[in-house]
Amino acid sequence: MKQNLTVEEARQIMLAAARPLPVERVDLLSALGRVCAADIAADMDIPPLDNSAMDGYALQAADTVAAAADGPVRLRVVDEVPAGARSEHVLAAGETVRIMTGAPIPDGADAVVRREWVDERDPREIALRKPVPPGSEIRRTGEDVRRGAVVVPAGTIINPATVGMLASVGRPFVTVAARPRIAVLATGDELVDFGEVPENGCIRNSNSYSLAALVYDAGGIPLLCPRVGDRAADVRAALERVLGADIVMTSGGVSYGDYDFVREVIRELAGELLFWKVATKPGRPLAFGVIGGTPVVGLPGNPVSVMVSFEQFVRPMLRKMAGMPAETWLPVRCRALAGEDLPANGNRRHYVRGVVRVREDGRLEAVATGVQGSGILSSMAAGNCFIVVPADSPPIDRGTPVTVEFFPGRTPEPFYC
Amino acid sequence: MKQNLTVEEARQIMLAAARPLPVERVDLLSALGRVCAADIAADMDIPPLDNSAMDGYALQAADTVAAAADGPVRLRVVDEVPAGARSEHVLAAGETVRIMTGAPIPDGADAVVRREWVDERDPREIALRKPVPPGSEIRRTGEDVRRGAVVVPAGTIINPATVGMLASVGRPFVTVAARPRIAVLATGDELVDFGEVPENGCIRNSNSYSLAALVYDAGGIPLLCPRVGDRAADVRAALERVLGADIVMTSGGVSYGDYDFVREVIRELAGELLFWKVATKPGRPLAFGVIGGTPVVGLPGNPVSVMVSFEQFVRPMLRKMAGMPAETWLPVRCRALAGEDLPANGNRRHYVRGVVRVREDGRLEAVATGVQGSGILSSMAAGNCFIVVPADSPPIDRGTPVTVEFFPGRTPEPFYC
Repeated sequence: MKQNLTVEEARQIMLAAARPLPVERVDLLSALGRVCAADIAADMDIPPLDNSAMDGYALQAADTVAAAADGPVRLRVVDEVPAGARSEHVLAAGETVRIMTGAPIPDGADAVVRREWVDERDPREIALRKPVPPGSEIRRTGEDVRRGAVVVPAGTIINPATVGMLASVGRPFVTVAARPRIAVLATGDELVDFGEVPENGCIRNSNSYSLAALVYDAGGIPLLCPRVGDRAADVRAALERVLGADIVMTSGGVSYGDYDFVREVIRELAGELLFWKVATKPGRPLAFGVIGGTPVVGLPGNPVSVMVSFEQFVRPMLRKMAGMPAETWLPVRCRALAGEDLPANGNRRHYVRGVVRVREDGRLEAVATGVQGSGILSSMAAGNCFIVVPADSPPIDRGTPVTVEFFPGRTPEPFYC
Repeated sequence: MKQNLTVEEARQIMLAAARPLPVERVDLLSALGRVCAADIAADMDIPPLDNSAMDGYALQAADTVAAAADGPVRLRVVDEVPAGARSEHVLAAGETVRIMTGAPIPDGADAVVRREWVDERDPREIALRKPVPPGSEIRRTGEDVRRGAVVVPAGTIINPATVGMLASVGRPFVTVAARPRIAVLATGDELVDFGEVPENGCIRNSNSYSLAALVYDAGGIPLLCPRVGDRAADVRAALERVLGADIVMTSGGVSYGDYDFVREVIRELAGELLFWKVATKPGRPLAFGVIGGTPVVGLPGNPVSVMVSFEQFVRPMLRKMAGMPAETWLPVRCRALAGEDLPANGNRRHYVRGVVRVREDGRLEAVATGVQGSGILSSMAAGNCFIVVPADSPPIDRGTPVTVEFFPGRTPEPFYC
């Protein structure tokens, strides 16, 4: 069994065990945030016909060449065409058709003049005082989208604008990857659930809920299992019950203690552990195995550790399973300037919970969110990023570039200007 | 009626018309992304008792002062205490208790030594070869959270870590602001819905779906109304049907055309229009009134315009209604460097759809997402921000700082390092 892997080594093993899920057909609005499974092409030109970009008058540009402030050109109004309708009239020289924004250009016309520029006091004719160049105010057929063009490529993560595009090409339903179902199983004799009274130093089970929330946040469906105590037989039974899930996540029981049975049970049911322990702080005790095709992630027990490990290892698996493109699997990483001094680091990569701000000069700056203990969730709740401090890093001075990873869906702190 | 307002003037009028919604009680996981309506305090210390930070041995530090590599100190193992249990034994000099991570420190003990540092071959006694400082490896009562301390203040937007914190203080249910219900009403004779065949230059109704998706994205509940044609009576009837919503959004029919009845109907039912037209590109034709207490937003008809107007005006109203703190109502703004030359701008503020990237030096850089026509949704779908170009701006050279507004929930483009 491999031990003390780097984050990258461990993630590679876990991603290899995550297989894209089968696709399903859902209605357009249910597809929001999910991944389009096939190229979607336009079934028509958009706009479908040459049409007017303005409320005004369709005409023949040649008629207006002589128009001048002191010598207006007059055109006969022979028809009117609102959007969604079509003029049967074929425009001849000296004629004009009153036209609304979006209405098709009548045959014979080659330009539109907006109504603000004409004298329309007489409903039967208009007067122009300057020439109208050919093609003025005409939106051309297919100028936005050509029929047959792929408007939404497979692998696109569907956002509100994508929803609009799919509607505009007549797609009430979309084929997307299924949502991963993730079993969440907290272990530990010291945990109590809602309704129980904590005694003897017992604490409440919070990992089940923070993990379930992360699964929702990542687009998955959590399966919340009842808490399990530190007995091998109970852990085994609980694990076997949920192996139908796409991923099983446990918390606790993967450290060195006499009562840490989870690691052993995973090894037993999986045949082997693919690895144990990653060189990170927090989140060192992490066990991973595959039981009958189901990836089983043995997360640590500390409230912050489980969340850090989820972001580094489980969310990427979820994103791969949900059909997202490979370049979106990993946390969004970038460089920012340290907004404060950071102490020297030990021999494990440190994921410091922090806040990224944008300075007036357009530079990103990152500061830690106070106390960083692995039991202190407020450091996660208040943060929008991890400051990634390499193993064996010397002290980092304020102003030095550091690597940060944004929490998914968290923009930098606002700076109003 | 006010006309040609700035974005700030218009937004102020609309925010004043948006009232926070009543609160409701929901289960912990349903509270994700919503706003906590009251301060939540810890009902117990966390940790509840002094407990061991390690698997090891609880002891009296004084016993170990003489411990040395060549002169080990031996202590009698008198008990063992797993997490969730408690030792009845009061530790005396020369004694030690085997203890697991999280288990309460036995009375009489003042330090813990981790098992890796002791010789435990003999189950009845351990040997130490170096002194253990008092307090070692002990997590103190209330060190993470003090009983009575506010762990989640009112106004907090609940994220996965907040969910964990609420669970850790025993809150299966949370009181949050209700989700705003937003009616979505697309108007226009040129629009067809799914199942209809577009003819005479008709296009499909996409605004209803992009707007509904934006409402979901903003945490609201969309009420999708059937499309309405350009007849005043139909528009009036459709509007009156949905005035029970928290906000009514229409699209189309607010421009100058003979068939633009929406603006007129809003004015009629509201008594007055609070304003018409804002000095932005796209999204200039915007009408706003309040009908019997319900804010009614008359959005333009172009697919991109409606989305820009939603982000600038409707989302802030939703956020206020959902109880979010005032500093989170407006789009997240910051400075970035122009990644390309930008042309001079006319007399309206231009919201250019763009992509913000983070450069290696930690600077944000913004580029436009291709063609910017108000019919071209791909510019929204591919973007993660608006580049905000002021009215009457001269040409902007590459490398000059510009103002950008992140699309909600979109982090800068990844840069892997």
